[in-house]
Amino acid sequence: MTKSFEDVSAEVTATDSQWIERAREHHARLTKPAGSLGRLEELGAQLCAIAESCPPPPARPVAIVVFAGDHGVVAEGVTPWPSEVTAQMVANFATGGAAINVLARALGATMSVVDVAVSSELPAELAIRRFRVANGTRNLAREAAMSEAELTAALDVGVRLAGEAVDDGARLLVPGDMGIGNTTASAALICAVTGAAPAEVTGRGTGIDDATLALKTAVIESALSRLAAGAGAREIVRQVGGLEIAAIAGFMVGGAARRVPVVVDGVISVAAALVATALVPEVTGYLIAGHRSSEPGARYGLEYLGLRALLELDLRLGEGSGAALAVPLVQAAADVMAEMATFDAAGVSARDES
Amino acid sequence: MTKSFEDVSAEVTATDSQWIERAREHHARLTKPAGSLGRLEELGAQLCAIAESCPPPPARPVAIVVFAGDHGVVAEGVTPWPSEVTAQMVANFATGGAAINVLARALGATMSVVDVAVSSELPAELAIRRFRVANGTRNLAREAAMSEAELTAALDVGVRLAGEAVDDGARLLVPGDMGIGNTTASAALICAVTGAAPAEVTGRGTGIDDATLALKTAVIESALSRLAAGAGAREIVRQVGGLEIAAIAGFMVGGAARRVPVVVDGVISVAAALVATALVPEVTGYLIAGHRSSEPGARYGLEYLGLRALLELDLRLGEGSGAALAVPLVQAAADVMAEMATFDAAGVSARDES
Repeated sequence: MTKSFEDVSAEVTATDSQWIERAREHHARLTKPAGSLGRLEELGAQLCAIAESCPPPPARPVAIVVFAGDHGVVAEGVTPWPSEVTAQMVANFATGGAAINVLARALGATMSVVDVAVSSELPAELAIRRFRVANGTRNLAREAAMSEAELTAALDVGVRLAGEAVDDGARLLVPGDMGIGNTTASAALICAVTGAAPAEVTGRGTGIDDATLALKTAVIESALSRLAAGAGAREIVRQVGGLEIAAIAGFMVGGAARRVPVVVDGVISVAAALVATALVPEVTGYLIAGHRSSEPGARYGLEYLGLRALLELDLRLGEGSGAALAVPLVQAAADVMAEMATFDAAGVSARDES
Repeated sequence: MTKSFEDVSAEVTATDSQWIERAREHHARLTKPAGSLGRLEELGAQLCAIAESCPPPPARPVAIVVFAGDHGVVAEGVTPWPSEVTAQMVANFATGGAAINVLARALGATMSVVDVAVSSELPAELAIRRFRVANGTRNLAREAAMSEAELTAALDVGVRLAGEAVDDGARLLVPGDMGIGNTTASAALICAVTGAAPAEVTGRGTGIDDATLALKTAVIESALSRLAAGAGAREIVRQVGGLEIAAIAGFMVGGAARRVPVVVDGVISVAAALVATALVPEVTGYLIAGHRSSEPGARYGLEYLGLRALLELDLRLGEGSGAALAVPLVQAAADVMAEMATFDAAGVSARDES
């Protein structure tokens, strides 16, 4: 019996800050100057709070799940890439040729690809997960991107796949995205949730010229004008979101419900995180920002979430690539807490405080 | 027949910028928007230039070598930690309990510890490399830290261990440091090479109070006053350096001579990199800055070297820990170039440039 997004949302509990202090005391006993592992120590404390265990469990195995969906808004000319590229890249993921496949192999991570809302036909022989909710969204510039039923189905796909990954042993989750046009939907979501202006949030995505950027910004402004003041998160996603983005939001909620950390990737995942935490605020404590994309919306979104990314390497690829690159840091944060010797055990002198 | 530092220095040739263009062309064929891997693409190009191969070879196996040495300057009270901690931490490295051991295991890296100039006795049963040049340096606040012969010997240890690591198969080198007092020597070196002021470069190392910081700064000013204007790199190291720092400089030169990239760690490794590149300027092209330490000298040194660190996580531990954390990024930069599908091979449409 598969649980719904609503069921799983109710299972998420906030992380408890008592674990931060316990982690600090644990770190103080390890053979290193106090605080000398910097942000790895904060991250380790978060992992303790998530798992309710100090030291935290290893942040492996890792499951990477790439959610694919198309966007009706490409009809407006917001991107130079045709929608067919979404399906072509799904095939590339399935056969191991994309950047995220390379990163997954290096991590020893499982990697799966999910058709949430691809608009083109996908060959039957492709090894992908098939949960198509729609053949892409409708054009968010002109009408609601999805129906209530489609939104619910996409959220359900996400929680289901998070649950399955954890059932299969995953102890760190990395959602990724593929969808031509999805930086437009993400920018609209980020504006709607944070209140930032489209002109500030809208970026060049995978690479567009000034004229297309102006068009993309205008499209987002127009879409946002359809939203009533104070529209709730579900209505925001339904009007201006994307189905793969909704699925990623569901995946984040699903990870949090199982007390497994979720690494947030670039601007698409940031938009999904805004949706997830708007729907289920307790999810925030389970999110780790992997990489801050060079897309401007990523900065606005991460600030709103109160998250600081581990990496800032000017990536703007998506697929989960920025999050995957941060995984070894998350694993290191857990490993040092579990494996380092203590001052007492190693016979190392404490500092002279005289 | 072990080669000397002088012999090996003569073998280093500058990296050739033609590889940057070849790498750019290669990246443009891979199934991702142009430039979307950001700094990983620059890093991949550097790896091509180092190896003279596009795509570059895998940046593994990894050899981590921690160089340990004591510092006579601790007699001035520049640190709250007693010198004995250097030997105690060497034992901790040898038995696998330090942070760098944990990181090395996660990387599947070999890890060795070298006694270059530890001042305490080290138990005979410890599995370490023994190349002790002196029982620590002399007090750089009052006299030259080392003799010419000691400096030469320390540089030779470094090139020797780099050569051995490469002979044993390593294709990425990570030097680390251990030495109570070595942030004082490093700050002095960074000031002497870059011309920065001691008050700006001197930091709190593993954690000191305001009074100790003032004392440490005064000690560095006093040591620098012994250096004649225009003193060469060898004389600078001899007067105000450290023997483990000289060995790390030798290790960097040794890696460059074998065309193997070297990941630079925190402020101690930055000081060593300044020494290595002052002695052999062509070494710069082989260096990758792993992590920018929160020690102020690291910023000055990296800027002087023209290097931008991959990570900035407020670490200030040394041991090679910041560099080790950056290793997966270096490996990813090489892996994507070697393993990603091309647009042609994957049947992915190029963007519509109309």
